[in-house]
Amino acid sequence: MPDVQGRSDGRQVAIARVGVKRLRYPVRLNEAGHAHPSVAEWTLDVALSADRKGAHMSRLVAWLDDLHLAEVGLSAEVLPQLLDGLLRRLEAQAGGLEARFPFFVRKAAPVSGVQSLLEAQGVWQARRGLDGVTQVSLQVDAPVKSLCPCSKEVSDYGAHNQRSIVSMQVVLRPHSAMGLSELLRVAELAASSEIWPLLKRGDEKWVTERAYDNPKFVEDLIRDVAAALRVDSRVASFTVEVENFESIHAHSAWARVEHGG
Amino acid sequence: MPDVQGRSDGRQVAIARVGVKRLRYPVRLNEAGHAHPSVAEWTLDVALSADRKGAHMSRLVAWLDDLHLAEVGLSAEVLPQLLDGLLRRLEAQAGGLEARFPFFVRKAAPVSGVQSLLEAQGVWQARRGLDGVTQVSLQVDAPVKSLCPCSKEVSDYGAHNQRSIVSMQVVLRPHSAMGLSELLRVAELAASSEIWPLLKRGDEKWVTERAYDNPKFVEDLIRDVAAALRVDSRVASFTVEVENFESIHAHSAWARVEHGG
Amino acid sequence: MPDVQGRSDGRQVAIARVGVKRLRYPVRLNEAGHAHPSVAEWTLDVALSADRKGAHMSRLVAWLDDLHLAEVGLSAEVLPQLLDGLLRRLEAQAGGLEARFPFFVRKAAPVSGVQSLLEAQGVWQARRGLDGVTQVSLQVDAPVKSLCPCSKEVSDYGAHNQRSIVSMQVVLRPHSAMGLSELLRVAELAASSEIWPLLKRGDEKWVTERAYDNPKFVEDLIRDVAAALRVDSRVASFTVEVENFESIHAHSAWARVEHGG
Amino acid sequence: MPDVQGRSDGRQVAIARVGVKRLRYPVRLNEAGHAHPSVAEWTLDVALSADRKGAHMSRLVAWLDDLHLAEVGLSAEVLPQLLDGLLRRLEAQAGGLEARFPFFVRKAAPVSGVQSLLEAQGVWQARRGLDGVTQVSLQVDAPVKSLCPCSKEVSDYGAHNQRSIVSMQVVLRPHSAMGLSELLRVAELAASSEIWPLLKRGDEKWVTERAYDNPKFVEDLIRDVAAALRVDSRVASFTVEVENFESIHAHSAWARVEHGG
Repeated sequence: MPDVQGRSDGRQVAIARVGVKRLRYPVRLNEAGHAHPSVAEWTLDVALSADRKGAHMSRLVAWLDDLHLAEVGLSAEVLPQLLDGLLRRLEAQAGGLEARFPFFVRKAAPVSGVQSLLEAQGVWQARRGLDGVTQVSLQVDAPVKSLCPCSKEVSDYGAHNQRSIVSMQVVLRPHSAMGLSELLRVAELAASSEIWPLLKRGDEKWVTERAYDNPKFVEDLIRDVAAALRVDSRVASFTVEVENFESIHAHSAWARVEHGG
Repeated sequence: MPDVQGRSDGRQVAIARVGVKRLRYPVRLNEAGHAHPSVAEWTLDVALSADRKGAHMSRLVAWLDDLHLAEVGLSAEVLPQLLDGLLRRLEAQAGGLEARFPFFVRKAAPVSGVQSLLEAQGVWQARRGLDGVTQVSLQVDAPVKSLCPCSKEVSDYGAHNQRSIVSMQVVLRPHSAMGLSELLRVAELAASSEIWPLLKRGDEKWVTERAYDNPKFVEDLIRDVAAALRVDSRVASFTVEVENFESIHAHSAWARVEHGG
Repeated sequence: MPDVQGRSDGRQVAIARVGVKRLRYPVRLNEAGHAHPSVAEWTLDVALSADRKGAHMSRLVAWLDDLHLAEVGLSAEVLPQLLDGLLRRLEAQAGGLEARFPFFVRKAAPVSGVQSLLEAQGVWQARRGLDGVTQVSLQVDAPVKSLCPCSKEVSDYGAHNQRSIVSMQVVLRPHSAMGLSELLRVAELAASSEIWPLLKRGDEKWVTERAYDNPKFVEDLIRDVAAALRVDSRVASFTVEVENFESIHAHSAWARVEHGG
Repeated sequence: MPDVQGRSDGRQVAIARVGVKRLRYPVRLNEAGHAHPSVAEWTLDVALSADRKGAHMSRLVAWLDDLHLAEVGLSAEVLPQLLDGLLRRLEAQAGGLEARFPFFVRKAAPVSGVQSLLEAQGVWQARRGLDGVTQVSLQVDAPVKSLCPCSKEVSDYGAHNQRSIVSMQVVLRPHSAMGLSELLRVAELAASSEIWPLLKRGDEKWVTERAYDNPKFVEDLIRDVAAALRVDSRVASFTVEVENFESIHAHSAWARVEHGG
């Protein structure tokens, strides 16, 4: 059969990234010494030089299926090696892989100690440029609680508070490693309070009072996260976004900081 | 050209609803004596008897385009008459139209009086059954604030609170009318506090203290909404759902009540 | 500490369903003799009589965590028994559980036989009413391909085609069982062609020609699904919706059929 | 009342962008000499130096409300002037405004000439950096049709085709102007076929045959768009992404090109 994608192209436009998107596959996620089931959404792409007509996209799917990640498991350590395999399979010099997935951390409530699994969103990414340099990055979208300092100060009692999402994208230096749950912890420590799926009444009292004692604007939250990441020697560069789903408005307060890169 | 849709079908399966979905069109929305721009997402469908092969879907789009709702405007009063036109155009006995759109209510902040537009989601629906009876309904998804009574009672200070969405779907009795902003107001009055896009510091103090003085479980909120709708003589039946986007969890508290129908 | 939720309420409004929503937990999914990782989104709720102030929502989370579904696994057979446990834990007469999750079916391409995992959305639900009757249902949202008969007939060559989603919700008769992949198969057989994540060129030829040989309107697709489910003695009632993400429009063609119930 | 946001901060972290997000407001959209209703989702933000505690977010909402865009109308020409006003109101040196909205283009079907409104997504953005330079950009997400060249070539008849979204983000050179519908046209001309909401049978034949005569990989589509934008003297830099919602798979084919910047 004719190999249409393998032909040459005369438009003189190189394509930085071409591949497949929204490809979901089950995965056993290995994180911080624990493994649990998840489903990862993959973006797999390669660079295409100006003279090549097309990428062989079906090879990207075949490559992923061959990994048997539901049985073998996926961990951050193997990302560079996976990328090597992908690029060889596609006969490509440059390209990347990205997996987005929910991950779960077992937490004990602050007073009762009852346990439950907190969900956060994680992303693992590895990308090699045309310069041959491979970059590994991770991202966590962490759910936390924020309580408004202004509301607390101007009110005789109470203070409005809400769910916030802290999104941290970190590019690691070569030979560095950072766990998803470690990054989640940075956001939790910067928030008015961390949160738990399961809280008994004594825990609810603890979280309520902890947040009231520890008010944070969206600006405070993002600064505390940025200050923590800035001094981490494993971090080459990072971007942080914080979104507060304001409980006194129908819109969000939002901030963004970039560092390095 | 051959009329494939107009042919007969031998499978003996009548189709309750067939038509177009996710069709968005600009609209001037007339609500409570005011008009403002919006964009409505339409579902337009007809009943198809077992012996008819297909519906003429393009006529549904032509019907909508001919209404020129961006200039003429759309209001709840004309829904039955619009439905008449749609069914005639499709030569159908039964069918329905549904428009979902953001709508906006001008509100003044509780202390400063500064004004802004609160967004809520609205739905207008008209549907005629094979029995020839036409039903008109409206739905509002209202953003409000809820504050947890348990958290307030067990804590020495503070109380967790969060954004909530109150979704009210109301089927009206014949010849009855109810404004979207009227239905929004039912949710606002049942909440720990209503919310505003624009609040100055004095307003923020008011909202904070108002919510603290007025704690509501998801159960309280839905019961107060249900109790208000139950005694409204214009209401034939209703469904209410309330979702609290808990600020101490990453999941929601949720409740549902159905009445009549 | 005070038990605020356990108090009585004077508003005389019973709540049909109250509980938690959007609670995601990792799960090992057992389906058709195979197990694979997934993440389920749970809605867990109970009925609340008019005189009871509130539900003990934290018990719903504790109940789910205690199941250890990431290790033990979840299968359709245990749904009624899980529901028993949930209602006992909440001291509730009526209530329900619902799990929504992506599930994966290993498929071999039609010509080359290369294998890959097709993703579909599944729902398992069990619900007991105040009459003490328990109902078990399943839902599959199946991705398939549809090719337009009208476009084929009026055109000298080619025919527009697109991705379609067939959503089938089936309530089972007591003591009946039906697999998710079995229900997925009903949709695949009714479509112009089933689809695969991984296809080689010979497979792509097969799918292209198969769809062209087998054109289906949204009406044909839904009728063929309904006709298949109607004669299945395990099915007490069902609802089917089909949505074609039309490739010649930016909106969808859509149909809905209800049967029994 | 105390001005908590106006205080100083000691953490030495400047915030590149802080403000409000997901703030929706009705708007009369002026585009290419025509005006129509729409609803814009705004992100409004300013830069905050390391020594300033917080931004006065309520002023961002007040600024937007004062514009009365539902009556006055919004057009690309006024973006720099709007940004001036926003920065003055917030007493900020740097910051940006972004409006995302559905826009509609009246199109006549290719054979019958019947008219309807095609929806696309538009973004207008203006941003001033700490260097005092203001950049204006526009983005269009254009729905089109793509037909697979490989499928056409290997099959005896037919070819799979699907809806595609072409996302083009263009930064304009100073004193340059480009209409949203002009950018939409670039994508339509590069596709296998443009699409329309309303098509009669003769039009459907035209679109079907046009796409079959004009097959395009995702690589072809993005190259043709990039080649067109590359030679436009008004364009300082651009990013294009194309996503094909494959009708033979449940995932997407996808490509990305960046140029200049």
